[in-house]
Amino acid sequence: MNFPKKQISNFFTEKRAGKSYSPPGSIDLPVNLGSKKKTEISLFSFDENSCTETKLQHVSEINNLLNPKKVNWINLDGIDDAESVNELGKIFKLHPLTIEDIINTDQRAKFEEYNYYIALMLKMLYLEDEIKTEQLCIILTENTVITFQEHHGDPFEAIRERIRQSKGRIRKMPCDYLAYALVDAVVDSYFILLDKFGDELDLLEHELNTHSKKDTLKNLQHVKRQLLLMRKLLFPTREMITLLQRDETTLINHETDFFIRDLLDHIVRVIETVDTYKDIVVDMIDTYRSNMSNRMNETMKILTIISTIFIPLTFIVGVYGMNFKYMPELDSVWGYPLVWLVMIITSASLIIYFKRKNWL
Amino acid sequence: MNFPKKQISNFFTEKRAGKSYSPPGSIDLPVNLGSKKKTEISLFSFDENSCTETKLQHVSEINNLLNPKKVNWINLDGIDDAESVNELGKIFKLHPLTIEDIINTDQRAKFEEYNYYIALMLKMLYLEDEIKTEQLCIILTENTVITFQEHHGDPFEAIRERIRQSKGRIRKMPCDYLAYALVDAVVDSYFILLDKFGDELDLLEHELNTHSKKDTLKNLQHVKRQLLLMRKLLFPTREMITLLQRDETTLINHETDFFIRDLLDHIVRVIETVDTYKDIVVDMIDTYRSNMSNRMNETMKILTIISTIFIPLTFIVGVYGMNFKYMPELDSVWGYPLVWLVMIITSASLIIYFKRKNWL
Amino acid sequence: MNFPKKQISNFFTEKRAGKSYSPPGSIDLPVNLGSKKKTEISLFSFDENSCTETKLQHVSEINNLLNPKKVNWINLDGIDDAESVNELGKIFKLHPLTIEDIINTDQRAKFEEYNYYIALMLKMLYLEDEIKTEQLCIILTENTVITFQEHHGDPFEAIRERIRQSKGRIRKMPCDYLAYALVDAVVDSYFILLDKFGDELDLLEHELNTHSKKDTLKNLQHVKRQLLLMRKLLFPTREMITLLQRDETTLINHETDFFIRDLLDHIVRVIETVDTYKDIVVDMIDTYRSNMSNRMNETMKILTIISTIFIPLTFIVGVYGMNFKYMPELDSVWGYPLVWLVMIITSASLIIYFKRKNWL
Amino acid sequence: MNFPKKQISNFFTEKRAGKSYSPPGSIDLPVNLGSKKKTEISLFSFDENSCTETKLQHVSEINNLLNPKKVNWINLDGIDDAESVNELGKIFKLHPLTIEDIINTDQRAKFEEYNYYIALMLKMLYLEDEIKTEQLCIILTENTVITFQEHHGDPFEAIRERIRQSKGRIRKMPCDYLAYALVDAVVDSYFILLDKFGDELDLLEHELNTHSKKDTLKNLQHVKRQLLLMRKLLFPTREMITLLQRDETTLINHETDFFIRDLLDHIVRVIETVDTYKDIVVDMIDTYRSNMSNRMNETMKILTIISTIFIPLTFIVGVYGMNFKYMPELDSVWGYPLVWLVMIITSASLIIYFKRKNWL
Amino acid sequence: MNFPKKQISNFFTEKRAGKSYSPPGSIDLPVNLGSKKKTEISLFSFDENSCTETKLQHVSEINNLLNPKKVNWINLDGIDDAESVNELGKIFKLHPLTIEDIINTDQRAKFEEYNYYIALMLKMLYLEDEIKTEQLCIILTENTVITFQEHHGDPFEAIRERIRQSKGRIRKMPCDYLAYALVDAVVDSYFILLDKFGDELDLLEHELNTHSKKDTLKNLQHVKRQLLLMRKLLFPTREMITLLQRDETTLINHETDFFIRDLLDHIVRVIETVDTYKDIVVDMIDTYRSNMSNRMNETMKILTIISTIFIPLTFIVGVYGMNFKYMPELDSVWGYPLVWLVMIITSASLIIYFKRKNWL
Repeated sequence: MNFPKKQISNFFTEKRAGKSYSPPGSIDLPVNLGSKKKTEISLFSFDENSCTETKLQHVSEINNLLNPKKVNWINLDGIDDAESVNELGKIFKLHPLTIEDIINTDQRAKFEEYNYYIALMLKMLYLEDEIKTEQLCIILTENTVITFQEHHGDPFEAIRERIRQSKGRIRKMPCDYLAYALVDAVVDSYFILLDKFGDELDLLEHELNTHSKKDTLKNLQHVKRQLLLMRKLLFPTREMITLLQRDETTLINHETDFFIRDLLDHIVRVIETVDTYKDIVVDMIDTYRSNMSNRMNETMKILTIISTIFIPLTFIVGVYGMNFKYMPELDSVWGYPLVWLVMIITSASLIIYFKRKNWL
Repeated sequence: MNFPKKQISNFFTEKRAGKSYSPPGSIDLPVNLGSKKKTEISLFSFDENSCTETKLQHVSEINNLLNPKKVNWINLDGIDDAESVNELGKIFKLHPLTIEDIINTDQRAKFEEYNYYIALMLKMLYLEDEIKTEQLCIILTENTVITFQEHHGDPFEAIRERIRQSKGRIRKMPCDYLAYALVDAVVDSYFILLDKFGDELDLLEHELNTHSKKDTLKNLQHVKRQLLLMRKLLFPTREMITLLQRDETTLINHETDFFIRDLLDHIVRVIETVDTYKDIVVDMIDTYRSNMSNRMNETMKILTIISTIFIPLTFIVGVYGMNFKYMPELDSVWGYPLVWLVMIITSASLIIYFKRKNWL
Repeated sequence: MNFPKKQISNFFTEKRAGKSYSPPGSIDLPVNLGSKKKTEISLFSFDENSCTETKLQHVSEINNLLNPKKVNWINLDGIDDAESVNELGKIFKLHPLTIEDIINTDQRAKFEEYNYYIALMLKMLYLEDEIKTEQLCIILTENTVITFQEHHGDPFEAIRERIRQSKGRIRKMPCDYLAYALVDAVVDSYFILLDKFGDELDLLEHELNTHSKKDTLKNLQHVKRQLLLMRKLLFPTREMITLLQRDETTLINHETDFFIRDLLDHIVRVIETVDTYKDIVVDMIDTYRSNMSNRMNETMKILTIISTIFIPLTFIVGVYGMNFKYMPELDSVWGYPLVWLVMIITSASLIIYFKRKNWL
Repeated sequence: MNFPKKQISNFFTEKRAGKSYSPPGSIDLPVNLGSKKKTEISLFSFDENSCTETKLQHVSEINNLLNPKKVNWINLDGIDDAESVNELGKIFKLHPLTIEDIINTDQRAKFEEYNYYIALMLKMLYLEDEIKTEQLCIILTENTVITFQEHHGDPFEAIRERIRQSKGRIRKMPCDYLAYALVDAVVDSYFILLDKFGDELDLLEHELNTHSKKDTLKNLQHVKRQLLLMRKLLFPTREMITLLQRDETTLINHETDFFIRDLLDHIVRVIETVDTYKDIVVDMIDTYRSNMSNRMNETMKILTIISTIFIPLTFIVGVYGMNFKYMPELDSVWGYPLVWLVMIITSASLIIYFKRKNWL
Repeated sequence: MNFPKKQISNFFTEKRAGKSYSPPGSIDLPVNLGSKKKTEISLFSFDENSCTETKLQHVSEINNLLNPKKVNWINLDGIDDAESVNELGKIFKLHPLTIEDIINTDQRAKFEEYNYYIALMLKMLYLEDEIKTEQLCIILTENTVITFQEHHGDPFEAIRERIRQSKGRIRKMPCDYLAYALVDAVVDSYFILLDKFGDELDLLEHELNTHSKKDTLKNLQHVKRQLLLMRKLLFPTREMITLLQRDETTLINHETDFFIRDLLDHIVRVIETVDTYKDIVVDMIDTYRSNMSNRMNETMKILTIISTIFIPLTFIVGVYGMNFKYMPELDSVWGYPLVWLVMIITSASLIIYFKRKNWL
């Protein structure tokens, strides 16, 4: 895992800061000039009996295609084309602040109620070394759901298939159920991230118990930071769903309420798992440090023991290296073997002492 | 204690993740294909005067056996057989989300009120090296309690006996008291886990004070993780019981309220004890580290002292090992014994100094 | 201070666990079979003008002695005699759960309102090496206060004396004031524990600053654990008094409310002091560790310095211990004194260097 | 800074514990017998036009001097004279609990509403090595403010001067404004403590960055403990002012409300600053430890480097100290200089290696 | 980055403490005598159709220039001139406490509602090594916005330009929208600080991963302290905006409410980013410490290994330096080479052993 440069400052504020002084609610300047993929607009229009699916060339075609008696789902992929967003905003009378939020992609997840519609902002998360986010904005009006996605590619294919094939209850339910189903698909996709983090943790725990390397700590810290980031991104999502559940407008039907309660339960479970993972990572970092320190201690201990045994011996041989004229031991035939005996006894008793003290 | 591989990722998300994209409320696919034990269904039907107990071959028999004037307790062991669950759901008009929750066994404990019934989800906990959970779902309708258990074996035998022998007040009370008694039995079974953890901690504390090994730390960390997990599982249980107590439907009678208040008291006590145990484990880990570091320090100290005493001595003998022609000491008869005297004085004074400084 | 074996598991759950599966509200089995002291029952019956005090032989005598126009205080010492408790419960129509709570002595402090009475559970605390608890249950009915004590001996002698001698306002006030006075006496007794902990901390702080031993840490950790335990026991007590203050039944008179508010203030102060003590102990443990590490560092430093000074010297003498045939220094008359000079200069400059660096 | 003996236990509970078993609301025994300074009583009586100031000989004179149409401020210095407090209490019909609180000087700051008056307890703080507290009780009745001070000397001289000279709005406002002004003066005096702590911290930070001594840590820990103590004392003060602001009796006028809101703002700022200081002290302690450990590391490193360089050299000279008969090097003329060369190269390459590794 | 002396005490309390005992609400003494820049007053008066901009010589001119049918924005730069502030206060009937708050520049951000106006206090933040604050007070009356700035220079030039050129909706909206726009400009300016902190953190992280120096830690701690300070300053700002949003006076129109909700969202995002940055800094400090300790360990290890290898060798050569008469090895021709062989084998096996143990 590599830490790209500019990582810290990049994630949170760069985009925002770039427009710091523009007037609030301003929408005239496309912010993300880099990626110039074409904006794609598609429309599902369905009820229990029929379902039409259209790819639009231009936003203005919508006026003719909307069917007020059916559930309409307009999906806009790629919000670089501020003009399209803007025009769509005008058609559905979206508040300028909503449009600003759609275009500026560093919003927190939020629930906002306006006069004729509800706006849900949330983040789709992808894990490629680091957590990548893609902003999704869901506008729920009386008979239309509009989704604005930052990039192409989404976790909604299964929903589209269910609509096309009329699987489950999606074709029988009103507009708010579709909005619920979309949020549910996003929350479900969080579980995939959890799975990946779980696998990563399994791997790191195995590494920790067998052959921890220098990188182990770095990776653990990286995972920890990603988990903290994920938690930070999910907290406002939970808040958003809580507000959605408590909402008292007529836009949310009583039957859908049960499903939103279930959704809240899912997001709480995701957050709890992230918390557990974070606790586990913190524990693992702790264990890593503990292991390191144990290894260091062991190294030091054995090395010191070797030194300690040889130091007295070196002293003894030093004694008989002295050049005094009158040293009776030197002239004795038994001198040399006796010194060896003394040295062997000394080192043996030191070793026994260390063994008793459990240092060996 | 062994840490099984795949432990971390396994516990929280695997099952869930496997069905990430299935439509919400979907129930058609049995999730746990592994264990294929037969689902067992039994029915208690009792009032103050009589009590019948039946083993059912098939769910459909229930229609004939239910007695609306008595308290009925349907118990379903093993939820692998999604079809039976489904059918039972249809008979009692359970919401699809309830049925989904019954089948997917990684739910948090929760209290959910639907139009005609209350659904209680909770976890039965078993401790075999690690905490194992088994999901229990209790459905309380006006005159029937339905319990869905993940596996065979439960802590309800005592309740069954009380019903059969009409011990205590269970036969005289309505349906909600039975539901209470079931939850109470589960909460009581948590105390058994606490007992086991208590014994484990006693053992580990003894080990810590006498002959702590490398495994001691590993075991302490293992117990800590299990306690954290238990706390995580119990928090929603408390929430569930709190909601049950505050419930204002007609399904819970006033007399039962006192008992539910008592139940809440029990679960709070369990959680507090888990917290205390967790604090104790953290303390013990701390003590372990402290002990380790003390031992290391002691080792280092004694070894260094030995070195320090011999280093000056080695220097002295080195001096008289020099080969200078003109060294008056070497020719003196008293040279050799005097050097020994000097060395003995040197080492003695070092030892006294160390003793004074309390290093010996 | 000794840590008795089975300490951890003993305190919290043993008694409870022993009855895990008995039916809720069951009261037929005396739990504490160990201590077989006779249960003692006494009755105070007083109003402003008169006061009678009776020792009862048997619970049944109460019916004749209760005076509904006076304040009656029944005190029951030793709850081993479950039968007496049970009978008393029947006389005052106590709920089975209340009686269960009285007999099972591991309750948290709690306030419970029943139809005709209020039940207060609280803990009397004694400090003998460890905190010992004794459960006290106070039942407040319209004209009677019943106290159930786990063992003999209580902090209520002063209250009895005040009743006998009609000191203060106790004889002039209704039943709820007596209940308040009893709780107040218990809370006041907590201050005695605080005093003892304070003295212990003074002692330990003195020890820490002068001659900390190995036991110091053990004692600090012991005190910390006791303080955490005390806090854990007092939190529900505060909750209980808060609920008592907010109570809106007719059992608590307006005049007594001021006194209960004062009581709440006392318990808050006790808890705050426990918190402060705990913070101080944590600080002291920190200081202990810091001291230990400083001492270790100092030891290592001085020893290493000695080594470092002698190592170069030993090298120098080694040089002139070499047996080369052609070493001009060896033949010089000044060789030996010069080597001494070099060695003195070397060691002196090392010492000066260390002094400059503040290592000596 | 010296830590006086008995510090810990002294501060919190000694006085209180001394009266543990006296009946609640008892006032007949003067508690603080030590200091026997005479109680001084003074009376201000003023309205917009006139102002009289009287020193009283005895409490009973008050009855004649109180002017119900003016604002009256009775100040009592030194509460040792329990009799005077008691008598004053009777004149103004103070509740026995209020009088108990006035005399027992270890109360938390609190706001208490009684039938005819409001009682405010708060602490005046002085910093002399340690924080000293003096209890102040302010009684606010319809037209009189009574202040009970523990000792002589107070921060109210400026207010007295404003009353005498009719500066500001104090003479034009009713009784509650005077009470506000007194609390405001106390809260303002807290800023002086903050200033002193700020100076102390500046000093300690300077010490830390230049020549930290052993005392530095002790002083930091002392300041930290004082700040924690101050915070503990101020939290209930904030609570008290919050309750004062929310008070809905007629004793507080609408105009004064703005001032109390301002007061709340001040106390919040004091607490925030204490918190900041505490964080800074914790940081500084951390830095101190970090510095200590760095210094130790450096010492160890340099010393070890010296050892490491000389150890191989000592080995080399040892080789040529051997007495083998057949050692060709010994007989060579170049032997000695060559050994020196080898030793110089060895030590030089070790030094270069250490430099490369950044250890030198 | 340099830590200026008097930093700690300076920031929080100096100014305030200087006036500790002045009567509350006093305004007659200019507090900041140091900087004597002239106060500058300017007036914008605009509606959808017209806009006039005037520089005032003296406060009194305002009476003639205010147009009650237009939106008026009075900006006062430099509050040293207490007289002007005072006079302006009289014209708009500001409460003395408001004027005190304007002049004393160490207020927390706050929202205060008075009878005819709303007062908003907030901090403009600048980052020059340390965070500098400038107090801004916004007074919102029915048709006038008054801004009091501590110093010259502000982030409002963009707003002025929008008013002059009638860009966006600012000319079409009432007074409260202008107040909103001003607060929004300040909050937007916080993002610039975040950007700077982000860059600083990128730099420090790079430094940490490549060549961390002693200063790295100091800088990290400095950034941490600045972030804590920023958070401390922003918390009351969020509170202020929350109160502004909940305000129910007629001064805030319904249309503006959406914008204030958006503002709240921005400030929450700022605080969350500050929190994230703080977590990252704490992590980085942790990593720094970890790196330091690793480096120390490595140094110690390699050095100790060198010692350990040479110590046995030195012993061996010592043996043959002994002067015993009868040492058979000494006379052997093979003695010397054999000793070398033994020494090479010894050191080689030690090296292999260390390699196996992964210490090399």
